[in-house]
Amino acid sequence: MLMLTHEARLAALREELVRRDLAGFVVPISDEHLSEYVGEYAQRLAWLTGFGGSAGTAVVLAGSGHTGKGAAIFTDGRYTVQVREQVDGALFDYEPVPESSPATWIAEHVPAGARIGYDAWLHGVGWAEAAAALLGGKGIELVPLTDNPIDAVWADRPAPSAAPAVPYADALAGRSSADKRAALADWLKAEGHDATVITALDSVAWLLNIRGGDVANTPVALSYVIARADGTAELFIAPEKVTPALTQHLGNAVTIRARDGFAGALADYAGLRVALDPKHAVAGIFHALEAAGAEVVRAPDPTVLAKAVKNETEQRGHREAQARDGAAIAKFLRWIEETAPSGEVDELTAAAKLRELRELDPDLVDTSFATISAAGAHAALPHYKVDEASNIPIPPSSIYLCDSGGQYLGGTTDITRTVWVGPGEPSPEMIERNTRVLKGHIELARAKFPFATTGAQLDALARMHLWAAGLDYGHGTGHGVGSYLSVHEGPQRIAKPGGAYAGTETPLAAGMILSNEPGYYKQGHYGIRIENLVLVVPAGIAGAEGDYLAFETLTFAPLDRRLIDKGLLTAAEIAWVDGYHADVRRVVGPRLEGADLAWLERETRPLQ
Amino acid sequence: MLMLTHEARLAALREELVRRDLAGFVVPISDEHLSEYVGEYAQRLAWLTGFGGSAGTAVVLAGSGHTGKGAAIFTDGRYTVQVREQVDGALFDYEPVPESSPATWIAEHVPAGARIGYDAWLHGVGWAEAAAALLGGKGIELVPLTDNPIDAVWADRPAPSAAPAVPYADALAGRSSADKRAALADWLKAEGHDATVITALDSVAWLLNIRGGDVANTPVALSYVIARADGTAELFIAPEKVTPALTQHLGNAVTIRARDGFAGALADYAGLRVALDPKHAVAGIFHALEAAGAEVVRAPDPTVLAKAVKNETEQRGHREAQARDGAAIAKFLRWIEETAPSGEVDELTAAAKLRELRELDPDLVDTSFATISAAGAHAALPHYKVDEASNIPIPPSSIYLCDSGGQYLGGTTDITRTVWVGPGEPSPEMIERNTRVLKGHIELARAKFPFATTGAQLDALARMHLWAAGLDYGHGTGHGVGSYLSVHEGPQRIAKPGGAYAGTETPLAAGMILSNEPGYYKQGHYGIRIENLVLVVPAGIAGAEGDYLAFETLTFAPLDRRLIDKGLLTAAEIAWVDGYHADVRRVVGPRLEGADLAWLERETRPLQ
Repeated sequence: MLMLTHEARLAALREELVRRDLAGFVVPISDEHLSEYVGEYAQRLAWLTGFGGSAGTAVVLAGSGHTGKGAAIFTDGRYTVQVREQVDGALFDYEPVPESSPATWIAEHVPAGARIGYDAWLHGVGWAEAAAALLGGKGIELVPLTDNPIDAVWADRPAPSAAPAVPYADALAGRSSADKRAALADWLKAEGHDATVITALDSVAWLLNIRGGDVANTPVALSYVIARADGTAELFIAPEKVTPALTQHLGNAVTIRARDGFAGALADYAGLRVALDPKHAVAGIFHALEAAGAEVVRAPDPTVLAKAVKNETEQRGHREAQARDGAAIAKFLRWIEETAPSGEVDELTAAAKLRELRELDPDLVDTSFATISAAGAHAALPHYKVDEASNIPIPPSSIYLCDSGGQYLGGTTDITRTVWVGPGEPSPEMIERNTRVLKGHIELARAKFPFATTGAQLDALARMHLWAAGLDYGHGTGHGVGSYLSVHEGPQRIAKPGGAYAGTETPLAAGMILSNEPGYYKQGHYGIRIENLVLVVPAGIAGAEGDYLAFETLTFAPLDRRLIDKGLLTAAEIAWVDGYHADVRRVVGPRLEGADLAWLERETRPLQ
Repeated sequence: MLMLTHEARLAALREELVRRDLAGFVVPISDEHLSEYVGEYAQRLAWLTGFGGSAGTAVVLAGSGHTGKGAAIFTDGRYTVQVREQVDGALFDYEPVPESSPATWIAEHVPAGARIGYDAWLHGVGWAEAAAALLGGKGIELVPLTDNPIDAVWADRPAPSAAPAVPYADALAGRSSADKRAALADWLKAEGHDATVITALDSVAWLLNIRGGDVANTPVALSYVIARADGTAELFIAPEKVTPALTQHLGNAVTIRARDGFAGALADYAGLRVALDPKHAVAGIFHALEAAGAEVVRAPDPTVLAKAVKNETEQRGHREAQARDGAAIAKFLRWIEETAPSGEVDELTAAAKLRELRELDPDLVDTSFATISAAGAHAALPHYKVDEASNIPIPPSSIYLCDSGGQYLGGTTDITRTVWVGPGEPSPEMIERNTRVLKGHIELARAKFPFATTGAQLDALARMHLWAAGLDYGHGTGHGVGSYLSVHEGPQRIAKPGGAYAGTETPLAAGMILSNEPGYYKQGHYGIRIENLVLVVPAGIAGAEGDYLAFETLTFAPLDRRLIDKGLLTAAEIAWVDGYHADVRRVVGPRLEGADLAWLERETRPLQ
């Protein structure tokens, strides 16, 4: 098939807009579930512009009546360089976010009376309302579309994944779907709602105890659920994904309907009161329900908090997954230590080796995200993604950072280790900074805190020892993690309050899992991050005045001793490191043998 | 003059309401400036009900047409006991806040069509709007009054203070009023405002470099300012407060007008754009400006942030005031140590002795708040106020807590010391808890943090060592402090986010002064608090990546060594205590002699 140039694609889209009497169109990176990871079938911005980042938006104006190129692409500071490399500046203006935005740009470039389209099934209702209000003030109409103009001209658009949806056993979920739906029904009744639409893919998977293979690294199936106050539900999913096992698992109380019919089925809820989460549901669902005459009540997705608090079965599954993962990581770290100093290991090779070692475990299903295998100055980019173009050999006598995770049937893992690649010794500065990062990691790992404390309150504990030296890191400290689901799961979060990396106001609760991942990044030189997952548990303090919580560290892998200055640690911090390493030996040791076991024992001996 | 009973006062108010065709009236504790401390002339709730607390509201219904007593008093958890002791339950229902509120109570007790009055010069516009909306929904009209019905029946109401307003020398303020007004005028011009009304008494005092004697413990004068974009201003103040020195100080650009004429003068701003802070200005000012045809723009009081950031002269003044205060505190602590173990010192005697020692300094003008002199279990009440009724002897072999401050011409102080009163030794629990409070105090005192960090982010540092033992304290960690102004000054604050003691989102900036006052309170037994004031300063870290800030401790007085367990301190914490005590000796020692100096030297020697 003939591959169109981006210039030709842009021209085709413009012709389509003219056919539809639209002055312009907004192209986000998004799917019908506002997912974090978007499938190939929905990568419309990449198709149109060539942009390969994970966050960005384009606006395309149809024809004449505007000044300039009539098209712009909006990206944030992470992509300032990349967007210029990948997107043709003769076709698109580069617009910085948050200084510029699609709506303000449209308001400046489009005359009053114009109609600008957007795909109502790819935008949140909050964006749609704010943009419509802003543009309405300029006499510009923002028009919701239910069929995307790009799809009309994207001839070789990939089909959505046809992977089957499969049951997730109660023995792993720890709680039946019927029980979860009963609790949801109780909530609906208590709130006076007739039904709620669950649109987030991991919420659907959790509620029905199903998993799928439609999204890279996250075992979810493209589907919607409408759950009703009587405990029944409708699952909207492509028929080819439905196996007899799935039908049997879902039982009589869950009706299976075609995903194609979802928008139309919303009309069944005319006259009923339907709860919908504006943070997770696209504008199109609001529009369809309102057009049908349903009463739409905005309320947070009721499964989110229940999903975040892991039950005992899920906690056991996580511990088991972590032990399996720890064995793979130990083998990998030994392999890096022994092979990388030669200079013959590159970032892609290392990531492949780690995957190979993880895949030795029969419970591993997938990695939980694209491995960050970062050598030299690449490690100073916290969100670095290695590909054929960026791949470099790991330089001898340098720091290597690897952030990776696995999807195991019982749990999702996420670990970062930063190691010194010999020969020789790391610089005093590297050791000092790694030790400060470690001190922050320990401060958070050892923290105890009262019930109702939020992640925003705890964030400074992980930073204080860096701050003492005038250093910091530009990302959050901890994100929630799913149970064989998304590696980024809300609502809990440990981060600075406000701004792009906002800490949530969600109180931490026993059963929540978070990452503990402070770091330090020296631009152009090296990067450090130490990440374990932690489980929120009752603190069990004798004589405590009130309910106190603590973190149980779930991740078990050695910390690189060559990067630790024991002289910078307090006695309590040294005791933590030694106790942690003893736990690593106890948990991971039985899964290793021979040279791997000997290596682990050496690396986990007490600090001297 | 005949003293009316509260029953007779209530009856008189009801008659007055009937005369005015009002079905009821709301009685807050407030003045025309929404001040934290309210003068006797405005203590209408106390006159009506006998309630002596600092926060509460009553609602009185006029006559028949309602069920029950037709009157209620609303207080929060701090006053649950006190309100029942002081207010006659036969006359008023006791209503708990926040479970109940005046507006919801009125909505439940008053029929549709009724008119309920409130004094628009005693309520914030936020309360007035929310209450009017809530009651309007029930068909009840909330009527703003400009003359208070209580004043019509309160025959012996005290006159407002007639204390003169006096100039505050540029040599103390560090910046002329003309310069401050010029900066304010620049802001008004930049924002497109014609004028702003400054209503907070400490803002007026700061802007015009004047001080007064109208409010207990806070050297402000009852007055308003309207500042204009041309740099001129009008000061509205009672003529008897105006001395020739004041007139000369204010100069030609500030017109002095009678405070009585303020409401009428707002009509002069018809057609102009006037900025007004809804957090500080009463509803009556909004109403008067709007009725006059001014365009009212809601904006934060532009002097608040400028006032919070102390200039170098103010910083010097604070340091000088702290040295003076430290000498008085040292003498007091020695006196307590030597006399209290006999059992013959009571809380009032101790507070009087401290005042007497402070008054030896010619620069002392007043205390900065009512001294918290708390013996035994009284110390477990963080906001305890001693009076003749509550006064108890300091028990031998107990903990004594004293929270006090002075208003010096150059600065305002606020210090808490918790000391062991012999004979004998404190219990291991007392020592352990005092040491945990001290560790939190030190953690905050030593903290370094990046520019734009808020107090809510730092709060956990002061609590972490208490949390580790399942302990906490139910108040904020740090409040702002004025320069010979209010001892509680915004906007900065160190506290948990959210809730009644919310930490503000104001970034800390170099030049701000805050208290550092963690504590621990064992109900019914004892209380501990360690409070110093700190100044935000550039951290001066070599090689810092960005702008970092730190705290310079301003308060100098020994910490009670008998309550410190050195074994619970890290080497760095011991070094902080020893360094702090060396500073105390250096700063305060030259101001002491004889037995006081010997005592100071003994109490500030290194920990052993």
